[in-house]
Amino acid sequence: MRGPRPAPTVKGMPIRVSARLPAWVSRFVARAGALFPRPEAQMALVVALSAENVRRKTGGPFGAAVFDMDDGRIVSAGVNLVVSANCSVLHAEIVALALAQSRLEHYDLATVGSRRYALVTSTEPCAMCLGAIPWSGVCVVVCGARDEDARHAGFDEGAKPADWVRQLKRRGITVKQDVLRTEAATVLANYAAGGGIIYNGRGW
Amino acid sequence: MRGPRPAPTVKGMPIRVSARLPAWVSRFVARAGALFPRPEAQMALVVALSAENVRRKTGGPFGAAVFDMDDGRIVSAGVNLVVSANCSVLHAEIVALALAQSRLEHYDLATVGSRRYALVTSTEPCAMCLGAIPWSGVCVVVCGARDEDARHAGFDEGAKPADWVRQLKRRGITVKQDVLRTEAATVLANYAAGGGIIYNGRGW
Repeated sequence: MRGPRPAPTVKGMPIRVSARLPAWVSRFVARAGALFPRPEAQMALVVALSAENVRRKTGGPFGAAVFDMDDGRIVSAGVNLVVSANCSVLHAEIVALALAQSRLEHYDLATVGSRRYALVTSTEPCAMCLGAIPWSGVCVVVCGARDEDARHAGFDEGAKPADWVRQLKRRGITVKQDVLRTEAATVLANYAAGGGIIYNGRGW
Repeated sequence: MRGPRPAPTVKGMPIRVSARLPAWVSRFVARAGALFPRPEAQMALVVALSAENVRRKTGGPFGAAVFDMDDGRIVSAGVNLVVSANCSVLHAEIVALALAQSRLEHYDLATVGSRRYALVTSTEPCAMCLGAIPWSGVCVVVCGARDEDARHAGFDEGAKPADWVRQLKRRGITVKQDVLRTEAATVLANYAAGGGIIYNGRGW
């Protein structure tokens, strides 16, 4: 909790949204390789990113990446930057999606050539990230830990509809759940046990 | 629709999320003033931002801002940057929230001193922005146009729960609807009539 700040003025109004991945992420991914043809290999990478983000104290225990579904090539990677970038929006999924769109130079990945893209996330998306998925243009979402694993660690997943998987399906987006769930959930549990910041656990 | 692009390599993996408000926004807000004590004045500003964003061809017909609820001072302003920044996440509300958090140097506006903050948005939040609101720390959301006004213009608001206002209330967030709704909805209708890009209207 901070003390009161001076009231802001128009003069100081910020104009740039900016955040940077921790420097280790690119090296970490490069060491893992460029091609991840199977969902399990893709998930192993994002779970490793989630664990490394905690170990290096660069953010919360969440990792995500966007993959080209034709050849399994990694397009972008994201880790949770909420605390480090002071931005509640920067969940791992949002970071990965924004970086993929930046790289492919389109706000809708479904319209980039004939390729199809998958979002792979170490934990099922919260309500915000769930809402972001249809706008992003990915056509597959691969999830590791379940919402209840996140909640068990103290995180709030928000007001998600019970039938969110079916709702995405109706929009042409396939969800694959429980890929390396145990490994992904272990990262969450270890984070909570280690006293990590639960940045949205207001006890609603 | 673009042609196929060369398959990406790890080497080229992007590392920075970055977007900038159009240059006119700061001047536009500065001319309007610094203090907006009443919700109607706050809404008049964000509706004007939504219209100006279309007029200047810098993005979609949506505006938002964060205000200090004690004195009505503007903290940050946002306009829709989806097309201009090639990022599906950058709805006006997300831009305004991220900029407010950047300015106040905290990812949770509810923990910044004793002040309370309101998000004012020219159109009711889509499913993504709705999910983002509880994580942001604002305690009031003021809305102009309704979801159905956006849908009427061709935009998709996503899978929002029917009782979203009550769900936010349960989290301590008050929603005020229909503030200058006609004025806000007119901007949406004019945009659609003018052939503006409906960037998420995939006809689901």
